[in-house]
Amino acid sequence: MTHEKPIRFGILGCAHIAIKLCKAITTAPNATLHAIGSRSLEKAAAFVAEHGLPEAVRVYGSYDDVVNDDEVDAIYIPLPTGLHVTWAVKAAERGKHVLLEKPVAMNVAGLDQILEACEANEVQFMDGTMWVHHPRTSKMKEALSDQQRFGQLKWIHTCLTYNPGPEFMKHSIRMKPELDGLGALGDVGWYCIRAILWAMDYELPKSVAAFPGTILNEAGVIISCGSSLQWEDGKSATFHCSFLTYITFDITALGTKGCLRLNDFTLPYDENFGFGSFHESSELDYGKIEPGRWCPKANEHVVETEFSQDVWMVKEFASLVQRVKYLEVKPEKEWSVMSRKTQLVLDAVKDSIERGYKVVEIVS
Amino acid sequence: MTHEKPIRFGILGCAHIAIKLCKAITTAPNATLHAIGSRSLEKAAAFVAEHGLPEAVRVYGSYDDVVNDDEVDAIYIPLPTGLHVTWAVKAAERGKHVLLEKPVAMNVAGLDQILEACEANEVQFMDGTMWVHHPRTSKMKEALSDQQRFGQLKWIHTCLTYNPGPEFMKHSIRMKPELDGLGALGDVGWYCIRAILWAMDYELPKSVAAFPGTILNEAGVIISCGSSLQWEDGKSATFHCSFLTYITFDITALGTKGCLRLNDFTLPYDENFGFGSFHESSELDYGKIEPGRWCPKANEHVVETEFSQDVWMVKEFASLVQRVKYLEVKPEKEWSVMSRKTQLVLDAVKDSIERGYKVVEIVS
Repeated sequence: MTHEKPIRFGILGCAHIAIKLCKAITTAPNATLHAIGSRSLEKAAAFVAEHGLPEAVRVYGSYDDVVNDDEVDAIYIPLPTGLHVTWAVKAAERGKHVLLEKPVAMNVAGLDQILEACEANEVQFMDGTMWVHHPRTSKMKEALSDQQRFGQLKWIHTCLTYNPGPEFMKHSIRMKPELDGLGALGDVGWYCIRAILWAMDYELPKSVAAFPGTILNEAGVIISCGSSLQWEDGKSATFHCSFLTYITFDITALGTKGCLRLNDFTLPYDENFGFGSFHESSELDYGKIEPGRWCPKANEHVVETEFSQDVWMVKEFASLVQRVKYLEVKPEKEWSVMSRKTQLVLDAVKDSIERGYKVVEIVS
Repeated sequence: MTHEKPIRFGILGCAHIAIKLCKAITTAPNATLHAIGSRSLEKAAAFVAEHGLPEAVRVYGSYDDVVNDDEVDAIYIPLPTGLHVTWAVKAAERGKHVLLEKPVAMNVAGLDQILEACEANEVQFMDGTMWVHHPRTSKMKEALSDQQRFGQLKWIHTCLTYNPGPEFMKHSIRMKPELDGLGALGDVGWYCIRAILWAMDYELPKSVAAFPGTILNEAGVIISCGSSLQWEDGKSATFHCSFLTYITFDITALGTKGCLRLNDFTLPYDENFGFGSFHESSELDYGKIEPGRWCPKANEHVVETEFSQDVWMVKEFASLVQRVKYLEVKPEKEWSVMSRKTQLVLDAVKDSIERGYKVVEIVS
């Protein structure tokens, strides 16, 4: 599709994560950074200068100016979750494709407003979950789907924590109910739930039951929580997420014959060196064990990658937008479905916490 | 204590695990294998011959004969859990020290009968949890206690599963309610709970809540289950145990500043090569990260050991028995306390499962 022009991105706000996305947009071959808007023109200009962004990037003193720029094809929205519905809907209504940071909304009702606006205006939607775009992720999926080595998936555990320190706990938007009211559940639990759904081929669990012992801050925002999830056929899962402990990005998936593990799923240790790896072991390796060993150490699978996962995400999104723009096909719905299922489970976990850790049925 | 004679062990039954213990007793410098009894004399004799045990080992056609042998100092009991109270009490009443396989009893009331008999007869009690005796375990404890590198422990997850196959599921004693009625919870959940308590310095949780989705066999025995555990001060834990998936022996302990992981906690990968290892990482290593890496890969800590963990267990137990026998000190109570706390939590998890996954308070 060499005749197609790169997709021109506008960015709303100067969030920390925007720095990474600006670089990814600049790097992706089918994307270009067109405009960035902040509530203050000075802040937007300073952001462009500070991060060495191209001089051609337009700077605006309001989000509206970005959304109203006729040359912007797609909007990347890294605003606090509480502002997502307003700005994603506005962007869609102006015919802009929407790349929306996670967690996508405060709840599935909010997300549905966004998805309806995207559908009505025939624009592409994707959320900002980067790790699923890394080539390692599809290799892991192949490993999980290998009936010979892995067998049937029965259980998965994911864990995502970091300890951002006292300043964050006091002042971050992730600690404020009106901005990122989902706290650790939205910020890191989102990844845990998404990874579980990914492993389960996006089959929704029938129920969830949050772990008693959720920790809230003074404003009632979740600092630490977790949940178990149950499927109709007996598969199950657990996750734990928090802002209280050392950085942990764990997936452990157990099959009848094998096991897959990695401890850097949301951000590969070696991202900038162009690869990612995971560990896998199977009872098929028993024959290879040295005498005296009881079970085999895991095999490391290294997956090389040309780009880091943020670039892959932008490239994939821009490519879908190009299809809509130049081939006049309908937007790809798959990404909306994944976001919605993630939000649905997240809502159920929150509901379970609020209802005293009761088992909550998932209704799709 | 070179003047002290090795402790003479009698073994009840020819369980598979007894093979390992016979070798450990033969290897430990302060222990000797004196007698083995089975319900059939032929079976006991065949066991001794088949596993190359010393010819001097006495063989008996009943468990009573072993317990009544005046030259036996200590009894190792690898019988099905349902028989533990009968034989452990009988052994204690005959003045024999008791090394009891896990799970120690069907419930804490049963264990209390055993512990009371041991106390009344002033004999040493210890359960058969081997991994806590490996020198690696005390090194891990040092790592968890390092306030500088690890900070405060906030969360721990343990997972122990294996897939013994359809023959086991049909015929194993671990699948029969009257023999090992605790199923996977007793066989492997025991280790998960013990590891959590070990990490928490044996402070009991205030409550547990089992995960909905426990899987039972036709006779009602647990094949797969798990639970969350909560402490008064906000610490929490989860575990998962099952007979349905590939072999997994995982501990992940998260502190405010660091993390400790190992995937072979109950049986080190390299046991027979004389070492065990674990992985640890800390935010203190951030300064050492190569540019471009976001967080450090874990450090591997290798702990060498002269003996395998089963030998260490026998050696430790025999040494406590020697103190009672030759120095006339009271039996060491610490091991009874650890067993009882493990059983207490295990009972609460079972209770939570039976009560529809309700939160169950722990009353010690």
